[in-house]
Amino acid sequence: MLRTNSCGELRLTDAGKQVTLCGWVQRNRVMGGMTFIDLRDRYGITQLVFNSEQNKELCNEAQKLGREFVIKATGIVAERSSKNPKIPTGEIEVIVSSLEILNPSKTPPFTIEDETDGGEDLRMKFRYLDIRRNPVKKALLLRHRMAQETRCFFDQQGFIEIETPVLIKSTPEGARDFIVPSRMNPHEFYALPQSPQTFKQLLMVAGIDKYFQIVKCFRDEDLRADRQPEFTQVDCEMSFIEQEDILQVFEKYAVHLFHNVKGLKLQKFPRITFADAMRDYGNDKPDIRFGMKLKNITSVVKGKNFKVIDDAQTVLAIASEGCSEYTRKQLDELTDFVKRPQIGASGLIYVKFNTDGSIKSSVDKFYSEDDLKNWMLAAEAKPGDLILVLAGDENKIRKAASELRLEMGHRLGLRNPDVFAPLWVVDFPLLEWDEEAKRFHAMHHPFTSPLPEDIPLLDSDPGKVRANAYDMVINGVEIGGGSIRIHNRKLQQKLFSLLGFTKEQAESQFGFLMNAFEYGAPPHGGIAFGFDRLCSLFGGSDSIRDYMAFPKNNAGRDVMIDAPSAISQHQLDELNLVLKEKQY
Amino acid sequence: MLRTNSCGELRLTDAGKQVTLCGWVQRNRVMGGMTFIDLRDRYGITQLVFNSEQNKELCNEAQKLGREFVIKATGIVAERSSKNPKIPTGEIEVIVSSLEILNPSKTPPFTIEDETDGGEDLRMKFRYLDIRRNPVKKALLLRHRMAQETRCFFDQQGFIEIETPVLIKSTPEGARDFIVPSRMNPHEFYALPQSPQTFKQLLMVAGIDKYFQIVKCFRDEDLRADRQPEFTQVDCEMSFIEQEDILQVFEKYAVHLFHNVKGLKLQKFPRITFADAMRDYGNDKPDIRFGMKLKNITSVVKGKNFKVIDDAQTVLAIASEGCSEYTRKQLDELTDFVKRPQIGASGLIYVKFNTDGSIKSSVDKFYSEDDLKNWMLAAEAKPGDLILVLAGDENKIRKAASELRLEMGHRLGLRNPDVFAPLWVVDFPLLEWDEEAKRFHAMHHPFTSPLPEDIPLLDSDPGKVRANAYDMVINGVEIGGGSIRIHNRKLQQKLFSLLGFTKEQAESQFGFLMNAFEYGAPPHGGIAFGFDRLCSLFGGSDSIRDYMAFPKNNAGRDVMIDAPSAISQHQLDELNLVLKEKQY
Repeated sequence: MLRTNSCGELRLTDAGKQVTLCGWVQRNRVMGGMTFIDLRDRYGITQLVFNSEQNKELCNEAQKLGREFVIKATGIVAERSSKNPKIPTGEIEVIVSSLEILNPSKTPPFTIEDETDGGEDLRMKFRYLDIRRNPVKKALLLRHRMAQETRCFFDQQGFIEIETPVLIKSTPEGARDFIVPSRMNPHEFYALPQSPQTFKQLLMVAGIDKYFQIVKCFRDEDLRADRQPEFTQVDCEMSFIEQEDILQVFEKYAVHLFHNVKGLKLQKFPRITFADAMRDYGNDKPDIRFGMKLKNITSVVKGKNFKVIDDAQTVLAIASEGCSEYTRKQLDELTDFVKRPQIGASGLIYVKFNTDGSIKSSVDKFYSEDDLKNWMLAAEAKPGDLILVLAGDENKIRKAASELRLEMGHRLGLRNPDVFAPLWVVDFPLLEWDEEAKRFHAMHHPFTSPLPEDIPLLDSDPGKVRANAYDMVINGVEIGGGSIRIHNRKLQQKLFSLLGFTKEQAESQFGFLMNAFEYGAPPHGGIAFGFDRLCSLFGGSDSIRDYMAFPKNNAGRDVMIDAPSAISQHQLDELNLVLKEKQY
Repeated sequence: MLRTNSCGELRLTDAGKQVTLCGWVQRNRVMGGMTFIDLRDRYGITQLVFNSEQNKELCNEAQKLGREFVIKATGIVAERSSKNPKIPTGEIEVIVSSLEILNPSKTPPFTIEDETDGGEDLRMKFRYLDIRRNPVKKALLLRHRMAQETRCFFDQQGFIEIETPVLIKSTPEGARDFIVPSRMNPHEFYALPQSPQTFKQLLMVAGIDKYFQIVKCFRDEDLRADRQPEFTQVDCEMSFIEQEDILQVFEKYAVHLFHNVKGLKLQKFPRITFADAMRDYGNDKPDIRFGMKLKNITSVVKGKNFKVIDDAQTVLAIASEGCSEYTRKQLDELTDFVKRPQIGASGLIYVKFNTDGSIKSSVDKFYSEDDLKNWMLAAEAKPGDLILVLAGDENKIRKAASELRLEMGHRLGLRNPDVFAPLWVVDFPLLEWDEEAKRFHAMHHPFTSPLPEDIPLLDSDPGKVRANAYDMVINGVEIGGGSIRIHNRKLQQKLFSLLGFTKEQAESQFGFLMNAFEYGAPPHGGIAFGFDRLCSLFGGSDSIRDYMAFPKNNAGRDVMIDAPSAISQHQLDELNLVLKEKQY
């Protein structure tokens, strides 16, 4: 080893020892005859001291060291005269007797500090410098710890991690596949997996009754801020179980992670049906760190000749606790918020239920005080509350009310990232009607089993069938989702046919799975967690990108290595491919 | 849970308990009024009993259960009258009171037994049935255990597992890349990584001083029996270290694995230079479970008018201990062995040094007994040994002698798969001359550092430069290899130029790495282990395929899911690609 100790390790008890440290120059200060260098490595910062009276030459050398130079310094650990209580090594310094420059550095394009002056693009281009910054390094350390704890947990529970293949078959149901031309099989293509779904089901058929894998998955989607073309899943599957078993095992997993990684003790997760979640929160991934449930007040508000309300399919109210003193400006902000195109409400009605018992609303000319008191009752508001009311088409207004509720939670400081409120959402619809394509889509995926009691509805009213599916939601974020799977060929065929597959399409894409079901497939089900998202939740960040070492930008580019890029004509020739005129 | 216990769990102490088991019907035997079913799951086999006198209907149902039916059976654990000491549950049986068929099964295309009647192709097509067989299941369990132990070891040593990207840039040095067309960046392509080499070096520049990852890598090579297009590496890198540190850390890793997975205690690994390995074994990955080193006897055998010898550049001898009584037939077999095209020797000379002191050879008419006694001395043979001699061109004959040595080791039972003989091979040449392309190739890869003392030779005699590189070899198999890396832009540029890169090529492919070296790159180095190979070594098998859940065949096909396959015109259009007339 080039060093005897790390830069985060030395304490007052080490005083007098000769040590050798390696690291990067964080700061270089000259104070009178003394030169002080903060030396940084993965573990911390240690102060190096050079005294020009004792060794002028060495001190001159030290003065020339620029930021981010890599050096090796040997010296004696000594107690500091002015201690720095902010860092663990703050009681000591190293009085350097010899110094070696292991590698010089150009001036970095941004400062290597917790708060840097570098913008996102620059930091991504020089990601290897960005990772030297504490917040990014800590995010990667957290991710490692979470992966390690995940594996230990599942190993202890008897799960086996099995690597499923990355070069698989294209089955373009759902999102787009990334495809990989095969040179050895001309004009044929592999696809990168969107998830190991079919393989983990085959492992259940194979008798591996508890499988897990932390695994890269791929989706060729147009990227939003929060999506990456490659992402990581904690993928799990079990045999001979029912939904209740899955919820228990994976709730235990979440409890284990929160305990071992964050030192938090979670209570038993509440469970809520999809239907109730939509009713109370307008959302199938409700943030239950706070209440302020949506209240449907349609029946008490109609018939007073106020057209907006009378014409509305649905009227929803949110009682915002203690907000009756909101100013005109605050109310205008909220109105602007709900009228934003991505929210899409046409306006916002408010009723202030003041602490003195008086009522003030934006609809005073249509409604009497008694009318509005009925609104209060229906909205379950109390004196001091502000009632926010949205009216319009059910679907649109429910979504808008959900967003407004989250905004109010945010404004009221009820969405503290250090508070964690997990829950299970169950009984999702099996199918979603796609008005444009005039056909059903699978809400989860085509392998999801219907609830047994709803199977008869598959023939009579497929849109009503509930799935044996469940999501784990924490703080308004879907952390994991899964289902009990179909393990019977006929039922699987029926599902494919409801989803608009011809028999031939189903056979060519998923014949291998349906065949497998005929050779003794056990009842099975599972779940997959979005690992990047889980890490960002634990780290208290909204961006999954912060928790990936080398993420891609919104155009799917790695700007550091400059990928994707052109390839040679020789490579294209070997793959029997020709580039076509660009479409745009 | 559908079951209370697994099929491997119940013991005599459980007698009297009511249990519910789930699993697959392994065997169904009717003996008089009794029906016995061996029920199998991941954990073992338990005997179920049905008595037609007690419950005729249930017994009839049981008799109809075919092989691989999935059933759920409830009953009482009872002591067996005729115990089976071969299985852990052999002292008990379950007297069944209720039975449910969870899923029937077609008759499987091969028997689900340790020794099956299914050929490789059939087993691969129905891999989900193959995995139900003990040897395959055990291989996957071993792999899981090894991955888990690997992660625990590196975690405990302060290494961080960091996921590097799968969609990277094509840098077609070395093997062929698999490429992935980008839809969002038309006419541009990602490549799948052949290894995370450049990313792990960037992580060192980023200050992560101990990195590891168990990671999928990809090579589009024409497949040999032992190669797979996707394979798994244990990839590691460290900063502020020298070769000695790397050897110590990763020797400790191997010792840990052998201890924790196989209960074996390994001694300190011997180290040997590449030059000595080639001299003594004709091979840079010597199997040192046995001796029989190659002896160069060129100088003592020439000048007796035997043309084969006199014309030979090199004459090598192997003293095969205790083989002086080999028969004509055995010697003919060995001659045939060395004359096979893949070995390529033109013939084999033998000298029997009998225990009675007499000598018999295939070259008696050219050499006197005294001549042959000198051969003995040079070959370090003793009475009872058989000396096998190969003569010809140095390179060809050394390779042939290496193969012959391994064959003799095999014949003499000296290559016991339960004995493990690890070693380090060091001081590899940095460059290999490619006679065809008239240029140097990197023996390891272009990022490998020369030995410091050999750097001056880069200008004067590059072929002589030794690399700061090392391989871990166990039982004749290269398990891991690595090097201290270049961390200086100028030296890296020089290497690229020696390897025939133009400045522009080097810049466009690896500019990001050389730029990174200018911002404070620490001295660093690492190693990568072939995880599939390591698993097969631990499992005592020659085939890595046995240790992968879903391997591909020699044409790179997954015959179970039938991949690769054709994709739709729509997919090709979106990627701006056209298929070209096939070349073959």
